[in-house]
Amino acid sequence: MSTFPVPRPGGRSARVQAAVHQATRQLLDEQGRAAVTVPMIAARAGVTPSTIYRRWGDLAELFADVAVERLRPESDPPDTGTVQGDLLAWADQFRDEMSSELGRAMVRDVVSARSVEAMGELCPCAQFAMCQLGAIVARGRARGQQVPKVEMLMDRVVAPIVYRMMFGLPMASQQNLRDWVEACCDAAATSKSAAGA
Amino acid sequence: MSTFPVPRPGGRSARVQAAVHQATRQLLDEQGRAAVTVPMIAARAGVTPSTIYRRWGDLAELFADVAVERLRPESDPPDTGTVQGDLLAWADQFRDEMSSELGRAMVRDVVSARSVEAMGELCPCAQFAMCQLGAIVARGRARGQQVPKVEMLMDRVVAPIVYRMMFGLPMASQQNLRDWVEACCDAAATSKSAAGA
Repeated sequence: MSTFPVPRPGGRSARVQAAVHQATRQLLDEQGRAAVTVPMIAARAGVTPSTIYRRWGDLAELFADVAVERLRPESDPPDTGTVQGDLLAWADQFRDEMSSELGRAMVRDVVSARSVEAMGELCPCAQFAMCQLGAIVARGRARGQQVPKVEMLMDRVVAPIVYRMMFGLPMASQQNLRDWVEACCDAAATSKSAAGA
Repeated sequence: MSTFPVPRPGGRSARVQAAVHQATRQLLDEQGRAAVTVPMIAARAGVTPSTIYRRWGDLAELFADVAVERLRPESDPPDTGTVQGDLLAWADQFRDEMSSELGRAMVRDVVSARSVEAMGELCPCAQFAMCQLGAIVARGRARGQQVPKVEMLMDRVVAPIVYRMMFGLPMASQQNLRDWVEACCDAAATSKSAAGA
């Protein structure tokens, strides 16, 4: 769960990536997606357009790369003392992020740039969610609590939040999140679905 | 649930749409997505490129429109005699369609063409699934059976199938589908989650 398809090169290459990402984020915020072009980004970042084409292929790939970096979590999920509390707090924040205009645009950019062949590979956005949920589950197990499996949390909490957002169904309500998290925790307490079993 | 955002015009307009859709499908199958251009489609369909730009805006919109038509179900879901059997048969077929190369490409095209503003509107692909599930549920209720809510089926069966496919998690197994469908049917039998309650 620690290897990302996004390159993390050092030196000059890292500086170019940082400058291009920053220029892209600024231009997206200032001018909107439809107005931004590779030459504009190149001029702002102080590189040639061919550097961008060589490295990212096209604008869709570059937008996806920037979106993935924006979706990368910056810290561990907050610790509320219980698995159920941690999961609910995380799901609440995740739902809000995904349903924001920026979140929708980022997920759309990431999906758009996925080739059909690459769709069999784990997407960084799913990997981020799995890592955050994995951290909550590990923390709960360390406290001696019964914990649901990450796989179940992906199917029962993450999938409906993202599906509803992507396909225009009503956003998951607070009550939905409570029900979904509670169902996973109940399953952990009563059946072999528990990760500790 | 009966109005689709896809226009269904009659007369000349309908003939143009049919010709352009057919040309697009043929060219996608023959040459692949990266090679197909608006002038190629126009030539094959016997229309001018400007007809296509005027009607669809760009190639992404046209691909999405063609994908939606391909995703539209052609018949009612098969009748196995029970709600659980009907749901499992439908989920099995839906999973296979969505996970095929064509299914992945179609969903990607539909998502790519959704503007951030339009992401609040119900997507035709979600609408197709809701209509099929609605038909199964209505048939079950007519048989006098306990039936789950369509909303629950979307969250617990459709969302994880599509999420797993889109973000590169392992495809839902036969056992996953059985578990998910059974859980919805159990909820219908034992709680106020039942559509009949």
